[in-house]
Amino acid sequence: MSVRVGIDLGGTSAKIAWVSPSKKILKDVSVSTGGFPDAKALVKKMAEAIREMLKGKKPTHIGVGVAGDIDSKAGVIRISPNLGWKNLGLKKLIQAEFKCAVIVENDANAAAWGLYKIQAPANATDVIVMTLGTGVGGGIIIDGKLHRGATGSAGEVGHMNIEENGHLCNCGNRGCLETYVGGPHLVKRAKAALSSGQKSSLQDAFKADPDSITPLLLARAADAGDAFALSIWAGVGRALGLAIGDLVYVLNPQMIYFTGGIAQAGDLILKPLWETLEKRTFKTPVHAVKIKVAKNAAHIGVIGASLL
Amino acid sequence: MSVRVGIDLGGTSAKIAWVSPSKKILKDVSVSTGGFPDAKALVKKMAEAIREMLKGKKPTHIGVGVAGDIDSKAGVIRISPNLGWKNLGLKKLIQAEFKCAVIVENDANAAAWGLYKIQAPANATDVIVMTLGTGVGGGIIIDGKLHRGATGSAGEVGHMNIEENGHLCNCGNRGCLETYVGGPHLVKRAKAALSSGQKSSLQDAFKADPDSITPLLLARAADAGDAFALSIWAGVGRALGLAIGDLVYVLNPQMIYFTGGIAQAGDLILKPLWETLEKRTFKTPVHAVKIKVAKNAAHIGVIGASLL
Repeated sequence: MSVRVGIDLGGTSAKIAWVSPSKKILKDVSVSTGGFPDAKALVKKMAEAIREMLKGKKPTHIGVGVAGDIDSKAGVIRISPNLGWKNLGLKKLIQAEFKCAVIVENDANAAAWGLYKIQAPANATDVIVMTLGTGVGGGIIIDGKLHRGATGSAGEVGHMNIEENGHLCNCGNRGCLETYVGGPHLVKRAKAALSSGQKSSLQDAFKADPDSITPLLLARAADAGDAFALSIWAGVGRALGLAIGDLVYVLNPQMIYFTGGIAQAGDLILKPLWETLEKRTFKTPVHAVKIKVAKNAAHIGVIGASLL
Repeated sequence: MSVRVGIDLGGTSAKIAWVSPSKKILKDVSVSTGGFPDAKALVKKMAEAIREMLKGKKPTHIGVGVAGDIDSKAGVIRISPNLGWKNLGLKKLIQAEFKCAVIVENDANAAAWGLYKIQAPANATDVIVMTLGTGVGGGIIIDGKLHRGATGSAGEVGHMNIEENGHLCNCGNRGCLETYVGGPHLVKRAKAALSSGQKSSLQDAFKADPDSITPLLLARAADAGDAFALSIWAGVGRALGLAIGDLVYVLNPQMIYFTGGIAQAGDLILKPLWETLEKRTFKTPVHAVKIKVAKNAAHIGVIGASLL
């Protein structure tokens, strides 16, 4: 009987869960990572937490999702800015604690895998998961398997090119999808427009407190018919339409799932997205793809890691 | 012992070849298709040619590559503009002649598969083949298998978005990669520039005969240092750099092969392409990908079809 443990390892905390064969969380626990932790000490701390959680059972599989550039084949973290780790053999450290199968994976890939295993219909084999939040990331399932690519870097949809000389991205490049979709980018541009006198129902809130302008407020204003707020979401949908057009041409997927805070804007994004797709992309592959906002996906990262 | 036959079925002719287990052409023959042929009659004609070619041997596998929108699972040609066929069950027609395994596939996919099987190193599992010619097409190999996608439409790299409101493409859309790379597009823009007085060593040739301006002449002029011709190839490389940047982010391939007439410009394209990639795309996946112009690939379509 397999005993699967997932770890969603971030810069603030490590969520650890024991996941049943039916993909439910049997028990979970959180360990503080406190930024730039000593890797050996942290692994020891997590190992203790796992032993306590499993109460005498031994793990057969441990999967870890980590933000960063991961060599999944070797189980090595090439670089994780959030944890301050470089060239760290995490798999070996964990296997020194537990004699079991250990897989270390990029956190976006782990979450994509979890979403695929839990929410995708059984006959879906080619699925793309896009996380639309502060940043934009993703994971790609092809032929029912997580596609990692030559260096485990596949699925970085957030840096697809939308406009060669577009907005500056955190990656140093210009015009990446993330700059059209990521929450901080939307808020920054909305504030700049409001500050220069843009007509909008959001002006009162902005004048009272500029920091009250959030993606949620932009969505509410758009839902209430505010033309300026609607134009912001139209821009998000249009950029996603261009990127997804490319993904449809290249991969011809059956399904695309959105997760993350920005995805919760739902139809505000999906409508202009589909307008762009219908206008630009060949009918056969476009009409074959379903695009959905994933259901509540709070534990998808840790469950996905356990199922790797 | 398997007897593999490949058919490269185009609007002018069908190239038919008997291909050995070591992927060499044992014998080949060509049948005229003469544009908009009656499918049943053409299949009969091809069947006769195959029987004569095989001299008593029976085919065990027949693979067909056809330009168009193909439902490979069903063996149906959804639409082939060059042949004037729509919703044609080609697999059934062929199996009425030969009791053997028959696979019908998009011609770009068949060629990509042939190139992969013949030229790619044994350890390459994630490979993209891009045909740069009159149009721009492609085929994608993932995990050692041809990736077809939900409707067999995967690999249409020629219509990836480079610039939302860019040049008009034959597909009706604007800014597709093909409009930056396809031969007729390059020639048309070169002629327009030369006609409006662009300084270039090509002016004499252009004035003597505008139709002497071909991709080959543009490449020769660039090789001789003509700044205008160089700028045209720089544009090709830059656009390919943007598209391949996206492919690297999404798929993280080990190799990308170029085939087709335009690819023969070689370093004129590869240099600006790599400049764009190095400038824009993350180091780890970019440094993992090799980009090569395929070796002489005249029979790759028919060999690829035989190996499907």
